[in-house]
Amino acid sequence: MKRITVLGSTGSIGTQTLDVVSMHPDQFAVEALAGGSNIKLLAEQAHLYQPKKVSVGTRQLAEEIRPLLPPGMELHWGNEGLVELAANTEADMVVTAVMGSVGLHSTLAAIEAGKQIGLANKETLVTAGHLVTERARAKGVPLLPIDSEHSAIFQCLNGERMKDVAHITLTASGGSFRDLTREQLREVTVEDALKHPNWSMGAKITIDSATMVNKGLEVIEAHWLFGLDYEQIHVLLHPESIIHSYVEFQDTSIVAQLGNPDMRVPIQYALTYPERMKSPAKPLSLAEVGKLHFKEMDFYRFPCLRLAFECGKMGGTAPTAFNAANEIAVARFLRGEIPFLQIEAIIERVLERHVNVANPDLSTIEACDTETRSIAGGL
Amino acid sequence: MKRITVLGSTGSIGTQTLDVVSMHPDQFAVEALAGGSNIKLLAEQAHLYQPKKVSVGTRQLAEEIRPLLPPGMELHWGNEGLVELAANTEADMVVTAVMGSVGLHSTLAAIEAGKQIGLANKETLVTAGHLVTERARAKGVPLLPIDSEHSAIFQCLNGERMKDVAHITLTASGGSFRDLTREQLREVTVEDALKHPNWSMGAKITIDSATMVNKGLEVIEAHWLFGLDYEQIHVLLHPESIIHSYVEFQDTSIVAQLGNPDMRVPIQYALTYPERMKSPAKPLSLAEVGKLHFKEMDFYRFPCLRLAFECGKMGGTAPTAFNAANEIAVARFLRGEIPFLQIEAIIERVLERHVNVANPDLSTIEACDTETRSIAGGL
Repeated sequence: MKRITVLGSTGSIGTQTLDVVSMHPDQFAVEALAGGSNIKLLAEQAHLYQPKKVSVGTRQLAEEIRPLLPPGMELHWGNEGLVELAANTEADMVVTAVMGSVGLHSTLAAIEAGKQIGLANKETLVTAGHLVTERARAKGVPLLPIDSEHSAIFQCLNGERMKDVAHITLTASGGSFRDLTREQLREVTVEDALKHPNWSMGAKITIDSATMVNKGLEVIEAHWLFGLDYEQIHVLLHPESIIHSYVEFQDTSIVAQLGNPDMRVPIQYALTYPERMKSPAKPLSLAEVGKLHFKEMDFYRFPCLRLAFECGKMGGTAPTAFNAANEIAVARFLRGEIPFLQIEAIIERVLERHVNVANPDLSTIEACDTETRSIAGGL
Repeated sequence: MKRITVLGSTGSIGTQTLDVVSMHPDQFAVEALAGGSNIKLLAEQAHLYQPKKVSVGTRQLAEEIRPLLPPGMELHWGNEGLVELAANTEADMVVTAVMGSVGLHSTLAAIEAGKQIGLANKETLVTAGHLVTERARAKGVPLLPIDSEHSAIFQCLNGERMKDVAHITLTASGGSFRDLTREQLREVTVEDALKHPNWSMGAKITIDSATMVNKGLEVIEAHWLFGLDYEQIHVLLHPESIIHSYVEFQDTSIVAQLGNPDMRVPIQYALTYPERMKSPAKPLSLAEVGKLHFKEMDFYRFPCLRLAFECGKMGGTAPTAFNAANEIAVARFLRGEIPFLQIEAIIERVLERHVNVANPDLSTIEACDTETRSIAGGL
């Protein structure tokens, strides 16, 4: 029986993680659940999965959820609550599915506590990849990717030697606006942007798919997860999202991972690795799909991806600035404050001003994050 | 330094194996070379690779090649020669790339001598899979597939557990006549048949691709190589031959191996397994390919594939009869004696008459092979 703590249990990845747990009640038990502000759903999850500890976003929310929880259930809140649940339980594995840069502290705490990490929080590696991978190595803790692309690469690397890897290719659907020109992008609305063609995902990540920021964050994540140079990380447009990503080895042999888009598969793989278990996901029929399409990535059409590569190569606090600028810009777009193309303009202007700090510690990263958010909010 | 014996060194797989050896002179040395009747090429290879032993098809050919060989080089001939080279050298690995059922004895001899097997002779597993896999297991000898499809499956299984495999899918280009109806197949010529769309291969295997017999033999081979039920072996039409084959695991995750069609890649993988080395093969660009197509296999259009599955499931001597009938029928087609569709008719009629013997020993297999050839020659 593997004991799982889910940080971000009410989000898209969190609820699907609990779906996977439900499908294999003989294999998994829930140790702790941290939600944000959706206390109704979190209370339901608490009754269903009977975790030992629960955490919510704020003290106010803790007071609201208290009467909804099973009597006597341990309750925490805020970033301290996340860290408590990450480190101070008997969980074997912590799934870090909180959104944004708040995932960083709790992931580091879980690593220090020797927990296996199911990593669904991109920002952890993007902003502090050098710290997180160093601590995971030092503690002998595996970082198991939950993103479909990184899970694909991770599966393709099974039984292989990293020195045999020529490059990896992350596939990108192109997002909701893949068929629009830059001219047409001027007019798009929040509603248009939220229609992702293949994956059912949260609002922030759906926008990040349309801007290709999501792929950019994945590139930086892949750099840290797999220890690859940026020159070894390629991105390919593949509208069907059937080939989730692939590895080319030095003998030119390519190993790819494929499937219908269903996040429960990579989530479950992280939970069961190195084994596999049955899944209710619909098996892929390539005969039914009929055709797969591929197209060179256009860095002019998707400038955010180019910026992400540049920030990744620069290292230091540049990826933190990139990520923070994007979080603020997307939030402003979702509130209807700025047009879609302003997202990339804000990121670009933030990076122009950014003074990079090499090999930053946690407080430097946090300072950069805070400062960037304030700048991006005013652009 | 790995020492390699190549049985069938003048054929398509043999010459490409020697290409791979040439590319990595610090890794591989040639221990022995067996050719058939192309003594000019074999003599050239003998001078270039300086094997300790050479073998040719007949005593007559041995007399002809003697003056062409480096002085003092050990010379053998016939099936005894093949067995001598397979078993009685200091080779670490024997690549069995002879055509047809003559590969069986020498493969078994190499296994008994504890050599790693680079298996390019399909008939070995098709006619005697039960004996060959049992002896390989008993001697702890790895059977490393060289066929692109089986090499693909083998690569996809890296680091995985066989109990997690739901099924494997062998891809089939459809061969030279994939766009013709059965009606149109009545008229095709030998010249038409020899134009394989994707792979550069020998004449026999090119015809076997057009009849789908080749895929049928691969299905039976896969059954033995990977220990899978026939229900777990699927075949999919994929005209581009870019996805060489794939494995679906019980979590619905598919792992596939891709590449430009170039036999030097799977050959080299068998030689370097579990490591990989650089290859001069052209790396695959999916953006350049643009599209991949897939189509359900049509067992009415390709009745030989249905027959192969039936023979495989039946076991015993049925696959031997299938293979022998096909060898004779293809030879007759290549000599212009029979029309293309007669190949499948001969196989079908042979199988109607065949009295199956369960769990046959080597002499029973050989008797079946001889008898079937005689029957198929007269149909």
